Amino acid sequence: MNFEEPETSADVVSTVLNRAAAAAKIWSHTDAGDRLRVLLAVADALDEHSEELVRLAAQESHLSVARLTGELVRTVFQWRYLAEAATQPHTYGALIDEPDADWPAGAPRPDLRRWSIPLGVVVNFEASNFPFAFGAPGGDTAAGLAAGCPVVVKIHPAHSRLSIRVLDISAEALTSSGAPDGLLSGIEGRRAGVAVLTNPVVKAATFTGSTEVGRALFDIANSRPEPIPFYGELGSVNPVFVTAEGSAANVDDIVDGFLTAVTASAGQLCTKPGVLVVQDGSALHQRLRTAVLPSPGDFLTDQLKAGFLNAVASVEAAGVSSRLAGSDEPNPEAVLLEVRAEQFLAHFGDMFVECFGPAAIVVTYTTDDEIIALAQRIQGQLTASIFGAPTDHLVEPLLAVLIDRAGRLLWNQWPTGVSVTDAQHHGGPYPASTDPRTTSVGRHALGRFLRPIVFQGFPEELLPRQLRSPQ
Amino acid sequence: MNFEEPETSADVVSTVLNRAAAAAKIWSHTDAGDRLRVLLAVADALDEHSEELVRLAAQESHLSVARLTGELVRTVFQWRYLAEAATQPHTYGALIDEPDADWPAGAPRPDLRRWSIPLGVVVNFEASNFPFAFGAPGGDTAAGLAAGCPVVVKIHPAHSRLSIRVLDISAEALTSSGAPDGLLSGIEGRRAGVAVLTNPVVKAATFTGSTEVGRALFDIANSRPEPIPFYGELGSVNPVFVTAEGSAANVDDIVDGFLTAVTASAGQLCTKPGVLVVQDGSALHQRLRTAVLPSPGDFLTDQLKAGFLNAVASVEAAGVSSRLAGSDEPNPEAVLLEVRAEQFLAHFGDMFVECFGPAAIVVTYTTDDEIIALAQRIQGQLTASIFGAPTDHLVEPLLAVLIDRAGRLLWNQWPTGVSVTDAQHHGGPYPASTDPRTTSVGRHALGRFLRPIVFQGFPEELLPRQLRSPQ
Repeated sequence: MNFEEPETSADVVSTVLNRAAAAAKIWSHTDAGDRLRVLLAVADALDEHSEELVRLAAQESHLSVARLTGELVRTVFQWRYLAEAATQPHTYGALIDEPDADWPAGAPRPDLRRWSIPLGVVVNFEASNFPFAFGAPGGDTAAGLAAGCPVVVKIHPAHSRLSIRVLDISAEALTSSGAPDGLLSGIEGRRAGVAVLTNPVVKAATFTGSTEVGRALFDIANSRPEPIPFYGELGSVNPVFVTAEGSAANVDDIVDGFLTAVTASAGQLCTKPGVLVVQDGSALHQRLRTAVLPSPGDFLTDQLKAGFLNAVASVEAAGVSSRLAGSDEPNPEAVLLEVRAEQFLAHFGDMFVECFGPAAIVVTYTTDDEIIALAQRIQGQLTASIFGAPTDHLVEPLLAVLIDRAGRLLWNQWPTGVSVTDAQHHGGPYPASTDPRTTSVGRHALGRFLRPIVFQGFPEELLPRQLRSPQ
Repeated sequence: MNFEEPETSADVVSTVLNRAAAAAKIWSHTDAGDRLRVLLAVADALDEHSEELVRLAAQESHLSVARLTGELVRTVFQWRYLAEAATQPHTYGALIDEPDADWPAGAPRPDLRRWSIPLGVVVNFEASNFPFAFGAPGGDTAAGLAAGCPVVVKIHPAHSRLSIRVLDISAEALTSSGAPDGLLSGIEGRRAGVAVLTNPVVKAATFTGSTEVGRALFDIANSRPEPIPFYGELGSVNPVFVTAEGSAANVDDIVDGFLTAVTASAGQLCTKPGVLVVQDGSALHQRLRTAVLPSPGDFLTDQLKAGFLNAVASVEAAGVSSRLAGSDEPNPEAVLLEVRAEQFLAHFGDMFVECFGPAAIVVTYTTDDEIIALAQRIQGQLTASIFGAPTDHLVEPLLAVLIDRAGRLLWNQWPTGVSVTDAQHHGGPYPASTDPRTTSVGRHALGRFLRPIVFQGFPEELLPRQLRSPQ
């Protein structure tokens, strides 16, 4: 994507990083109770300004007020939720091994006490598609701060006015609640982003966006003299497999759910189902042929729209698909293509690359082997879904294949909508995530910014309070 | 290091990987109870052959029989310990979020159930210095298998006969206990090692060795089309800081402990204390000047000895150190150098690079500022130690600096000896580890080979047994 971005000057970047480094020294030792108080103050401030922020976001992103209002509720909840999680000792993996002279490992066991500490300054590269939930006030920012890390936000040019306003509102709340100066700041521009990512003060990075940009940043993070963890969410097709039973049942519900999931927010969701695998000639297949696609609304940016049209054109250029529904105009609002499994496997290799916008491919299969072969070819995914009945003979073999390829598996549900909960896992094998062991949503998102440390043989008075022996 | 290594042929590498991939399909679904049985069979087999294995290891490594016997006890314990850990549900982070219509995140919470699954085939690059504990039968192999991953061992040429024998003994135990074919195998040669590391079937790598080789392999792992987690332990100086109180107390104990830690196993330990920081003119300093170094024994290989002599020569070439003890011959058995803090900071930058062998530098400080400045300059370390009294005014500021630079902090203890326990953390900021969030020793070593997955909205009968609702 080629946005014209203003560039934060090298001097300002340097000041931002110096202040963040100074903040790290204070914030990493700030009690979780005090961190909770500070983060709740930011949540309250975002809440108080919700009308203004949603209005700004709608202007810049072209997303609907309803969608943005819901997203901000979720985002504010996330601050409160993660701040609360940071007060729980089990978030830090607290463990005490007392000395054991008879430990059977060949030598006595010393007194070992395990805890976790914040990694240091985090840079969060904003996404374009969720100005709140994966933007300046998003989960990566909240998780970093909750874990005890200052955060520098690389502002996305698609909604920079919003992000600057969010950072201003947050700064006020941070200052008035006693947070250290420089705890949360923003920078603009690609050069500035790389300067931050390569600065030794920065110890972790987060990113949500395209595979191309994400991989380039991942490579930079890993080629530093001191490589740092890079948590990137790069791309996912989120395939949905409908077994024979699924094809027969609730055909209208499936079609409605699918078309909504494909067109919601103009299809610009990381969990949009880009491929729907259905039985050839089934009732569902027939019904899809006459489906009318809802209007998807405007794109976030003109660049994204151009990229979307290119992607659709290149799929169509293979000459193996036909349009199922939607307009036939040269500048379509939403596109549904149909292709046979055999052709799909022959032309689109490891499933088709994520097409960011209101498009999906319906792939038709005739044999069990074909649907399993399709499942086997997919790359790492955020999600994979099955619509069917538990007794269907295809369900077990499909699950066995999909479990190795996705971070979240869904049963008779659509993957859009990622609940912020304890058990949530929003990640998956590459390219869904650059680190399949981590999630960017939910309680475990916080752990990405911590590292363990163990104290051996320390007297009680020198240990962190949480590692002292119970009295 | 330039060993002449036999090269496993490309055909054999391909067969090894095909068999490992086939084994992954079975082993990843093998119940933890069955995995426990299989791993205990290997532990028993290693135990039964301990005399033969220690004899072989002593021939190839020049390490003492006593040291190798202890190492094998620890290694066998590790198999039993990790196999047992793999049967515990909390190893997999099991979590159930039940549906909640009133979940305050803006939308109802669905039924989400979190579990962890094995990453897939693991390649374990053997270390030279621990033929058992970080070799073919070492913690990385045991942790990978316990987590449900087949393991391919890249055999180290310094003790290849031992590793081949270990793999033969293990293979017999694996077969007779019903493990899938191809679960554990070995390959030799650098080309073969890279071929395995870059094969798409392989999903994680472990390494213990030099920063140079480790970083090269890390870069390869990250430049794959699908990057994979690379768990490398690359280098550590393990600095020890003695405060004024520490300098006065137990001088003889400190000197004896230090000299033993520097020369044990010819100083070829990743946790050898390479830098001892002492107060200039203190009783400890005086006593070190007349210390007699124990004989360190032979090097693992001639190449390592040559590398060691070069490293010592390059430190001495700076012309700022003097020999404190040990022989003055051109081919010294063990070397202790003394240098003033100011000179050390000026010439050895971010502390001196790990010198693999029986050498250490005693750095003398005169002011509080000097000892803190030394602590501030160190790179990431596996360990950092303080010898002192809790009331010493230097202890708190030293701890505040060292906590950000090491994975394990020790109090009046030496860092050699890494206990296999639940709380252990053997890792640290780069270059001590390429992933500061992970440990290669202890219970958490197993988690490196798992990734989370969440099931949304599944009926009980389709869920893994451990995620079904309690009856």
